[in-house]
Amino acid sequence: MPADHDTVNRRYTLAAHPRGLPAPQDFRLETTPVPTPADGQVLLRTLYLSLDPYMRNLMAEVGPGYADPVPLGAPMVGGTVSRVVASRHPKFAAGELVLANAGWQDYALSDGADLLPLGDMAQPSLALGGLGMPGFTAHVGLLDIGQPRPGETVVVAAATGAVGAVVGQIAKLKGARVVGIVGGADKRRYAVEELGFDACIDRRDPQFAQQLAAACPAGIDVYFENVGGAVFDAVLPRLNVGARVPVCGFIAHYNEAAAPAGPDRLPQLVATLLQKRIRMQGFIILDHYGERFEAFRREMGEWVAAGRVKLREDRVDGLEQAPEAFIGLLQGRNFGKLVVRVAQD
Amino acid sequence: MPADHDTVNRRYTLAAHPRGLPAPQDFRLETTPVPTPADGQVLLRTLYLSLDPYMRNLMAEVGPGYADPVPLGAPMVGGTVSRVVASRHPKFAAGELVLANAGWQDYALSDGADLLPLGDMAQPSLALGGLGMPGFTAHVGLLDIGQPRPGETVVVAAATGAVGAVVGQIAKLKGARVVGIVGGADKRRYAVEELGFDACIDRRDPQFAQQLAAACPAGIDVYFENVGGAVFDAVLPRLNVGARVPVCGFIAHYNEAAAPAGPDRLPQLVATLLQKRIRMQGFIILDHYGERFEAFRREMGEWVAAGRVKLREDRVDGLEQAPEAFIGLLQGRNFGKLVVRVAQD
Repeated sequence: MPADHDTVNRRYTLAAHPRGLPAPQDFRLETTPVPTPADGQVLLRTLYLSLDPYMRNLMAEVGPGYADPVPLGAPMVGGTVSRVVASRHPKFAAGELVLANAGWQDYALSDGADLLPLGDMAQPSLALGGLGMPGFTAHVGLLDIGQPRPGETVVVAAATGAVGAVVGQIAKLKGARVVGIVGGADKRRYAVEELGFDACIDRRDPQFAQQLAAACPAGIDVYFENVGGAVFDAVLPRLNVGARVPVCGFIAHYNEAAAPAGPDRLPQLVATLLQKRIRMQGFIILDHYGERFEAFRREMGEWVAAGRVKLREDRVDGLEQAPEAFIGLLQGRNFGKLVVRVAQD
Repeated sequence: MPADHDTVNRRYTLAAHPRGLPAPQDFRLETTPVPTPADGQVLLRTLYLSLDPYMRNLMAEVGPGYADPVPLGAPMVGGTVSRVVASRHPKFAAGELVLANAGWQDYALSDGADLLPLGDMAQPSLALGGLGMPGFTAHVGLLDIGQPRPGETVVVAAATGAVGAVVGQIAKLKGARVVGIVGGADKRRYAVEELGFDACIDRRDPQFAQQLAAACPAGIDVYFENVGGAVFDAVLPRLNVGARVPVCGFIAHYNEAAAPAGPDRLPQLVATLLQKRIRMQGFIILDHYGERFEAFRREMGEWVAAGRVKLREDRVDGLEQAPEAFIGLLQGRNFGKLVVRVAQD
């Protein structure tokens, strides 16, 4: 077995279940020996670690149901772009670049079942973003559930984020009018000037709800829900008859320890769904890989290669930055798809 | 023009917008002269008046959006089975039986556009129930949105009502396990013994939520939502991954003047939709007539004729009973489709 790698593995484990927004001390940086692959296994070196909002749900004591929560003391999970540094698996050779689930650590073992070869991808970290899970989430949620028609108005929040930016750009490709919602003037400018959205609104503006209404003079036909909170509240009364609301995330509420104070708006939501014949549908992207991931990769790959969909990465350097970067993500401080460069390739 | 009818028309107008549950004094019984049809009009004699929960929404100052509210002083609206007593319309002859929208009154004029000839139907009041709007509501909501598969569990509330009883029976025809929810032991027995539901639970039972869970050991795949309130609360945690929730009504909340006290359960609802990939979709049956009412009538007519779907009518005699009967409907006091026999035919 080649020894051209470190002997020490750094990793972040879950030290405590967060209450509300995670704090740095909820993560513990540990070192362990780099493991040795058994027969049928590969040893992976993490190059890029993806940080995504769903990870907050896996830090809770009770998981979200679609994936197991991280046990206390176990390494934080996460998608990675990894290099095979040693292989005792017939299908993978040392040196190969793969999409993996190595988690928040330098090295990991895999039996190969969850690995996807990335070939000689020019910018492999895109496999964690627009060409990977977040892009696929945008594609499935917008096209399969949202089903925007030309001329319809599509609203997407976190509009310069990993998912939102792709949602808006695909909606534009389909002929929709696209209104983004972001936090900050720089993101606003980027959404309109670089991504080509028709309008973009700052959710921190005191006049946010009025501005949203003004930007959607014909109402809202598709709202791609990935944040919840005040954005959802402003969108709800503007939804048109027959609107579709794919629900892919609800970040504003991930850190809530209990149901917020009243009044109870559940009846009002259901009454709105009824009166406006709205379809609201949650989806978890894990369900859809078998059925259409390859079709997505082909189409999105063409769009990205042709410059029709632009992908922006927010890259932090060093595994030790992961907790702070992740906490910032939950606060909307990232600008583009958040990835950690764990190792220079 | 034949004069074989009364000269005085009795009608109920909207006297006041109700606060909460309507009271008898929100309706005013008036008499007017029976009108005379102009060229192109028919004069209709009401035989049966349908009473339906949606009417509560039309009594509010601000309508529900899908139909105009009833102005103060105007006659209450409602579907009717009517006899043409005088016609100056080329397509309708005196003596013909029609489905109409004559409202809460003895006589009404129509220009024919909203009339549907009923021919020599054996029990014409069924055109207001299982063979009409409520049956169509059940058919569209269950089959187009709920899409039950054989072996799945379907839950329906108001399960002996005009819509619920048809939902449950169609679900049985499609091979689903059906659990009804009703108020009262007589209705429970009827749902199981007469309608063939697999189980039926009394929503007034203190152990209601536990009983629902016990009756749905494999969870709930389709919940046909027509009541809201405590029933919805008990159903929500039992919904399976991939469940469908057609929303056709929300009676428990129709009489609410304001949002109920907290906590605010809206975030919990949306989080549940997400985690369980649930589709929740409101529909208004008026949208669907053009597209598939004839197909429904054919199929449901066959089922009813063959005894595969049983229809139960709760008939009150006399227009003067309409307000009390309607108030009872909103409290769940009816047992079967509520119709008022306004005139002996």
